[in-house]
Amino acid sequence: MRMNIRHERISVLGLGAMGRALASALLEAGREVMVWNRTPGKAGDLVARGAREASSVAEAIGAGGLTVVCLLDDASVRETLAPAAPKLAGATLVNLTSGSVRQARELTTWLDEHGARLLAGGIMAVPPTIGTEGAFILYSGARDLFDRAAPVLAPLGRPHWVGEDPGFAALYDMAALSGMYGMSAGADHALTLVQAEGGDVEAFKREVLQPWMEQMLPFMVPDVGVHEAVPDEFNPAMQATGLENILAASGEAGAPTELGGHLRASLWRMRSAIR
Amino acid sequence: MRMNIRHERISVLGLGAMGRALASALLEAGREVMVWNRTPGKAGDLVARGAREASSVAEAIGAGGLTVVCLLDDASVRETLAPAAPKLAGATLVNLTSGSVRQARELTTWLDEHGARLLAGGIMAVPPTIGTEGAFILYSGARDLFDRAAPVLAPLGRPHWVGEDPGFAALYDMAALSGMYGMSAGADHALTLVQAEGGDVEAFKREVLQPWMEQMLPFMVPDVGVHEAVPDEFNPAMQATGLENILAASGEAGAPTELGGHLRASLWRMRSAIR
Ligand SMILES: NC(=O)c1ccc[n+]([C@@H]2O[C@H](COP(=O)([O-])OP(=O)(O)OC[C@H]3O[C@@H](n4cnc5c(N)ncnc54)[C@H](OP(=O)(O)O)[C@@H]3O)[C@@H](O)[C@H]2O)c1
Ligand SMILES: NC(=O)c1ccc[n+]([C@@H]2O[C@H](COP(=O)([O-])OP(=O)(O)OC[C@H]3O[C@@H](n4cnc5c(N)ncnc54)[C@H](OP(=O)(O)O)[C@@H]3O)[C@@H](O)[C@H]2O)c1
Repeated sequence: MRMNIRHERISVLGLGAMGRALASALLEAGREVMVWNRTPGKAGDLVARGAREASSVAEAIGAGGLTVVCLLDDASVRETLAPAAPKLAGATLVNLTSGSVRQARELTTWLDEHGARLLAGGIMAVPPTIGTEGAFILYSGARDLFDRAAPVLAPLGRPHWVGEDPGFAALYDMAALSGMYGMSAGADHALTLVQAEGGDVEAFKREVLQPWMEQMLPFMVPDVGVHEAVPDEFNPAMQATGLENILAASGEAGAPTELGGHLRASLWRMRSAIR
Repeated sequence: MRMNIRHERISVLGLGAMGRALASALLEAGREVMVWNRTPGKAGDLVARGAREASSVAEAIGAGGLTVVCLLDDASVRETLAPAAPKLAGATLVNLTSGSVRQARELTTWLDEHGARLLAGGIMAVPPTIGTEGAFILYSGARDLFDRAAPVLAPLGRPHWVGEDPGFAALYDMAALSGMYGMSAGADHALTLVQAEGGDVEAFKREVLQPWMEQMLPFMVPDVGVHEAVPDEFNPAMQATGLENILAASGEAGAPTELGGHLRASLWRMRSAIR
């Protein structure tokens, strides 16, 4: 017999910026939330809003429902779970700590050895967007586990299952993050250029950079790598000239050169493609 | 006495992918268009749709209205205009060829010496988006020139003036392009990772990468560079761990390392910021 999903029990291990946002969204949706954090005193207003604070990891895991884990990294997850290992049998953990493909696979094996099951996750949101339109959470692991957990976890962001391989949530998460870091590196380079040449940085960002990046996002079919086809309008000679302009301007402006390194390699690959 | 703006005369030098898109949008808006291209036979259906083909650069410039120049690079612009120098007096040129800040300033000086005026531009669109919602064109140079030319050029994309300094359109254009290349480098890196680990590249792109990049775009306040303030939720320890994960995964997957170089430098700067 299933309880009403609103009152489903759920524990949250880790009350950093993200853990607090997760616990808050779960409380908001009426879940019965138990929280734990290594350093005490981080539960803040969560307790005032109805969360119970566990005095140990084992107590939080033993509370009954899903246990959501959101700590700094894989090492902190291992350190946190090890002392509670004897209490893991029968538990279901949802690990929303960012980590690598290999780490997710190994944690699954370790939990399996202790009689517990893992749904491995990747959060595609930042704390202020948890539970809002657009936020989504990647999950990988057994499909039946996902089907059971998804409605309980839905208040965090749209649940999106990416496969049985427990490493896939981490893979897609990290890949998407590297996309974001590229975007951020590009934006950083752009603002550095504008500032170095005495342009109006704020106006540029608001009136040029943001609308341009929005407009171009759907065109972000990479020129190189997995996709071979380059659409006509991205003709390599023209693109190569554009890159040369950027590199020249960056040199003149004394802008950081690491992104330049990537652009130069891209240029070289385009040149080889033209030949 | 001004003519009806619909019938305003305008010449387009250069019928590459972009020049053809520009001429086409101008014809569509009812302008009287004259076109020229170094290699003949590129006017395609433009002539059938009412454009006249000039037999020389001087003829196109002498036709009366604005002359829009859209060639490969600054060198091709200089090569194209040099033979027509004696006919430049009194002309107004709008240069939409991508180039550097210095090139725009020098072209302005050279044209001034020949009695012609320059509105320097930067196209924030690709050929298929010319004249569509979202497309915009940066212009820099004398404000009176912009005010007179803007309504004539509006069919190409929303005209946006960025200052008297003729180099500023190129500066903002190149800076925005470097933002786009960063985004593209990130997307490329992401797809390479997913492919290397056997993920579903198309599903990842459609269901994860694109919505995630859209969601994060408004947060793209760079961590380093001109902006000092790092919002709370982008805490450096957590970000540094995220970057380490990406670098480790990229190494394992054998993904290209140039973007890694940038990420590593970012990480190093974050570490210094934490210390
Ligand atoms: N913030 C974001 O924008 C974002 C977005 C997507 C994913 N994530 C992921 O979410 C996870 C948490 O991020 P966050 O923003 O909440 O980070 P955070 O604010 O730095 O919090 C880190 C949490 O980890 C705990 N912790 C660290 N080392 C530990 C250890 N050895 N043993 C036990 N607990 C330990 C900390 O506990 P103490 O209080 O005791 O130090 C704290 O609760 C990370 O994996 C991050 O990559 C974050
Ligand atoms: N396509 C885009 O997505 C895009 C976006 C923004 C800005 N732009 C800028 O628009 C400009 C044109 O781009 P495009 O896409 O039209 O490039 P394209 O298709 O390669 O066309 C290049 C044009 O330049 C001409 N040209 C090259 N060298 C010349 C020379 N020495 N003398 C005279 N003409 C010469 C070519 O004439 P021939 O036919 O005789 O070779 C052709 O008309 C570039 O500066 C580009 O950066 C393009």
